[in-house]
Amino acid sequence: MSNASDPLVLFMPSGKRGRFAKGTAVLEAARELGVYVESVCGGRGICGRCQIDVQEGQFAKHGITSSLDHISPFSPKEARYKQLRDLKDGRRLSCSAMIEGDLVIDVPQDVAVNAQVVRKAADERIIERNPAVHMCYVEVDEPDMEKPLGDLDRLKAMLHRDWGFENLEVDAHLLPRVQSILRKGEWKVTAAVWRDDEAGRPHLIALYPGLKNEAYGIACDIGSTTIAMHLSSLLSNRTVASAGASNPQIRFGEDLMSRVSYVMMNPDGREGMTKAVREAINELIGKVCADGGVDRADILDCVFVGNPIMHHLFLGIDPTELGGAPFALAVSGAVHVKASEIDLVMNAGTRVYTLPCIAGHVGADAAGATLSEGVHRQDEMMLMVDIGTNAEIVLGNSTRTVAASSPTGPAFEGAEISCGQRAAPGAIERVRIDPATLEPRFRVIGIEPWSDEPGFEEAAAKVKVTGICGSGIIEVIAEMFLAGIISEDGVVDGSLAARSTRIEANGRTFSYVLQDGAPRIAITQNDVRAIQLAKAALYAGVKLLMDKQEVEKVDRISLAGAFGTFIDPKYAMVLGLIPDCDLDKVKAVGNAAGAGARMCLLNRGYRREIEETVSKIIKIETALESKFQGYFVDAMAMPNKTDPFPELSRAVTLPEKSQSSDGGEAGGRRRRRAR
Amino acid sequence: MSNASDPLVLFMPSGKRGRFAKGTAVLEAARELGVYVESVCGGRGICGRCQIDVQEGQFAKHGITSSLDHISPFSPKEARYKQLRDLKDGRRLSCSAMIEGDLVIDVPQDVAVNAQVVRKAADERIIERNPAVHMCYVEVDEPDMEKPLGDLDRLKAMLHRDWGFENLEVDAHLLPRVQSILRKGEWKVTAAVWRDDEAGRPHLIALYPGLKNEAYGIACDIGSTTIAMHLSSLLSNRTVASAGASNPQIRFGEDLMSRVSYVMMNPDGREGMTKAVREAINELIGKVCADGGVDRADILDCVFVGNPIMHHLFLGIDPTELGGAPFALAVSGAVHVKASEIDLVMNAGTRVYTLPCIAGHVGADAAGATLSEGVHRQDEMMLMVDIGTNAEIVLGNSTRTVAASSPTGPAFEGAEISCGQRAAPGAIERVRIDPATLEPRFRVIGIEPWSDEPGFEEAAAKVKVTGICGSGIIEVIAEMFLAGIISEDGVVDGSLAARSTRIEANGRTFSYVLQDGAPRIAITQNDVRAIQLAKAALYAGVKLLMDKQEVEKVDRISLAGAFGTFIDPKYAMVLGLIPDCDLDKVKAVGNAAGAGARMCLLNRGYRREIEETVSKIIKIETALESKFQGYFVDAMAMPNKTDPFPELSRAVTLPEKSQSSDGGEAGGRRRRRAR
Repeated sequence: MSNASDPLVLFMPSGKRGRFAKGTAVLEAARELGVYVESVCGGRGICGRCQIDVQEGQFAKHGITSSLDHISPFSPKEARYKQLRDLKDGRRLSCSAMIEGDLVIDVPQDVAVNAQVVRKAADERIIERNPAVHMCYVEVDEPDMEKPLGDLDRLKAMLHRDWGFENLEVDAHLLPRVQSILRKGEWKVTAAVWRDDEAGRPHLIALYPGLKNEAYGIACDIGSTTIAMHLSSLLSNRTVASAGASNPQIRFGEDLMSRVSYVMMNPDGREGMTKAVREAINELIGKVCADGGVDRADILDCVFVGNPIMHHLFLGIDPTELGGAPFALAVSGAVHVKASEIDLVMNAGTRVYTLPCIAGHVGADAAGATLSEGVHRQDEMMLMVDIGTNAEIVLGNSTRTVAASSPTGPAFEGAEISCGQRAAPGAIERVRIDPATLEPRFRVIGIEPWSDEPGFEEAAAKVKVTGICGSGIIEVIAEMFLAGIISEDGVVDGSLAARSTRIEANGRTFSYVLQDGAPRIAITQNDVRAIQLAKAALYAGVKLLMDKQEVEKVDRISLAGAFGTFIDPKYAMVLGLIPDCDLDKVKAVGNAAGAGARMCLLNRGYRREIEETVSKIIKIETALESKFQGYFVDAMAMPNKTDPFPELSRAVTLPEKSQSSDGGEAGGRRRRRAR
Repeated sequence: MSNASDPLVLFMPSGKRGRFAKGTAVLEAARELGVYVESVCGGRGICGRCQIDVQEGQFAKHGITSSLDHISPFSPKEARYKQLRDLKDGRRLSCSAMIEGDLVIDVPQDVAVNAQVVRKAADERIIERNPAVHMCYVEVDEPDMEKPLGDLDRLKAMLHRDWGFENLEVDAHLLPRVQSILRKGEWKVTAAVWRDDEAGRPHLIALYPGLKNEAYGIACDIGSTTIAMHLSSLLSNRTVASAGASNPQIRFGEDLMSRVSYVMMNPDGREGMTKAVREAINELIGKVCADGGVDRADILDCVFVGNPIMHHLFLGIDPTELGGAPFALAVSGAVHVKASEIDLVMNAGTRVYTLPCIAGHVGADAAGATLSEGVHRQDEMMLMVDIGTNAEIVLGNSTRTVAASSPTGPAFEGAEISCGQRAAPGAIERVRIDPATLEPRFRVIGIEPWSDEPGFEEAAAKVKVTGICGSGIIEVIAEMFLAGIISEDGVVDGSLAARSTRIEANGRTFSYVLQDGAPRIAITQNDVRAIQLAKAALYAGVKLLMDKQEVEKVDRISLAGAFGTFIDPKYAMVLGLIPDCDLDKVKAVGNAAGAGARMCLLNRGYRREIEETVSKIIKIETALESKFQGYFVDAMAMPNKTDPFPELSRAVTLPEKSQSSDGGEAGGRRRRRAR
């Protein structure tokens, strides 16, 4: 209905634009363009959710001159709202502000209307909001004997008229409560309408008397070791609390396969583990709610990710089939259930969405990390590695994405390492070795100074140094290689015992002693072998995917997972965990799986994006690939027997490649310190 | 793709026809034409559900000569099926029988494939089947590491490919069971897919290993007094068992309003009554299952009707609002819930549908009766009266339908009548009075002979005559009127005491003595007044609806409900419960509400039909109509003060109308016996 002389309106950050007749409310213009502007009250000026900023100035690129004169003056509705609530200067309510001329409008992504909720630990990523749950305020007609529609039916009619929801389905738990809620609100109520998918039917999942101007969601990554949760407002993008807890399934088995074995050996094993993880999640919900000052009944939507075995156990599915070939998932697609159906205690109408799993060993967590890192949105070839007991590997760009898992085993998590431990206070997490003296210096979780700095001894008297965690193992072995203590084939050079007492015979092999005190912490030849096996498995998987993509080099690398957060990309590359890449383009991205879950929580469009992406991802089963074994053997070397590492060489002077597997000569070479 | 030279195929009873290329399977032709032919195995020749009969002969009206030569010969698949199972001679499996020439095909509505199920008490009405639950046999691909789709996802792919179900939603309870069922069935399974509404998404609600060739549904009418249930196969139209039980809510109050009062007076009253009715329904399910030899877990769909208060209590909704103006229903539209959500014990996936309620006093039972009687499908003007504590009245035709309830009170059910009782052994249900002698003869429930026939005394020694039930009261008062004992205004003529000892003074009024023994059963002046009030209320409601329809006369009358089943339409008309009508067109139709529920169970198309019909029904609230009081007063007379009853006069000689309300002269008039 617009014509060329109508004002031009540009919405940021989406960049969507259109012409609208003068007098059109900005909220209406946003809706017509598909720009998501929240509104609970449906334009009555009472919820304050639809705030916008008008930009002033000439926007030559867009051919728009935007001015405060191009929008209607501050309305009585806005004045009233500002008086009662907190409306920042310059902010307008888009339901009340009318277009009078060309405008550039900024849709702020963090509209705070409830000052009491404290913002905490937010992921700073901007997520355009389009949640699956909408809060819809309506004023319902009172009963009329001449038109004896039921109370619920009149409510549905208003949700159709005011909010466009047709064929609304109603949760059974609301049937007994509709009448009292309508009367309590004096026929003014706020309906929570869930619709995951625009083509699906909307569902009435909760109903509140009067204006209910808040609703929350949780995004949760169920790791084998740790469960991480964010509590976010569904009406702004604020994360109001984040928390983590140990996965209590650990008592049934440290790693995934031992948990599958537990299920196979115990008749009620599956049930026990499902109960344990759901209880832990319920407790964690309690914690984030307490931290955020939120009533758990106000949580209406949840998104979960996890590796296939965590995913299955969480949903109450026996993971036995995942324990052996063909590693059949019970369900690979995204799953919708009600929270109450899986014993999660929130609102009776709360919905749960789990991201799709990519394959039997590449789970919904990898899907979340893929979404978060945007592997499938890149022009460049991007490698995303999520390292846990298995490494989940995704490689691709906007054209084509491939994925696999590699059986790294638990060495990277500190298991199978003689002095290994989980990342916890007392664990060595950073190591440097002087190549001249072979003396180490290290940093310990819970102790601020390095081991050679003042104050370390005092601190270490309180926080006892107990072992070495995953990132520490990577660093110490990489430093041992750079210092010439081990050869590129991973042999600890016994001849160095003559130069340093740090090198110590240990039967027929040699160890490197990091701490000679109590406890004694040394890296044995077996430890080096364990890391070599793990890194070779990972690298061979990456190499297979590079073959599938027909590339010799990757452009970007994201290291995800708790392990990935603390690892120094340079050392990962020195060891040859990851292929050569510009070090500036290698990022440790932390819990990318959880970040992907949060994206899906705040914008259901991401659910469709990852579902479609996963359906297109080409899955590689490393066990079926004939080349895997060869790549694995070649990748036992550091950084790798066959691949050049030119980017790494710009940052680190690598020892020259030896012709034999005897690393005896390596120690004498000159090198720059890698620090 | 067909052309004019292709064979012409006509399906009966639907009358749908089309041309199909030679070699087309009859099942496929039926599907293309939208003729519902059941098939569980999807054309594999193993379920035997798709049986058809080929008609032989010239069908001049349709221009078709059908012959057994026009269909492919009996196939090996059919031969094998016939050998293993029961295939009647002449019957063909439509998946295996190919069109070779013009055909007239009969789709039998009762295909029996499980001989062990006994057919019982079936409603003989032909209902074209189109149930909401489909049993779909599929053969699922085995897991493939190279395409790691989940087991459920591969099942969904087959249900899409073979059965056309897209965007299938899966009940949460199946997630943990999919893998074991697929493996138990060796990748051959039968899926139960529920889709109430073609535009809605299909839901996987149950899954069985191998071929599951049976599924059941229940249709249930929750009356205030009696709960009636049918158990039917969803794969044929057989009703395999029917049963009834008392509504245990009676202990909280005999009539509806006393139950509402109970809820209002007792904090856990609603909960107690909901629990009572659900328990009774669960027991009744057990009974019909035992009678029909059916596992209750094989019941996958249910349809319920009931008056608004029964409907609300069943769904767990507080009916207090229905106890006073504006009589607001919590929900008037059709309701979908899972059986498990309302504590009904069947399959975890069983669905429940309740028909819409028409108004605060005109319930889902009236909607069911409307559907069953087809008020809205008539060319003629049809009156449907469902008599309980309230009379629910629907009047209309295909153009326009109106509905109301009339506050008849419980007199028709035997309450408020001095010797009244419920219809049970010992209750007088039929009465004749000799107009010459004023001597009565009657028939009693549980006693075969009439009271003046041989054998009555012996029988009455066993089954004691204890009172008079609703139909007996109607007859005795009508007969008293026809015999001149009461005037058209309902006054018992005391002067007749001189002629007969049956007329007896009772203070200032007179009674008519039916049984002088123990107990003494007499009809008092107050009893006559109670019936007059009840019938006047009913008639005034009917009259209002006739006004709304602008008709002087109705063409057809259906008397529904337990009371309607036993009432003699002639006496109902003599009393003036119903308006004048050709007696041949007045039918007692029994539990029409339950019949409507059964229609909705077996064909979801009827759900849409009644939903649409109810949304269009014009509701009349008698309390708001100024004319109601006048009609009510006029209708106190027998048959009625103002309306002519020409049709009734053809069957019965009515006493001449007196000018006064004193019926003293009436006794002397000549009349034919009404018998």
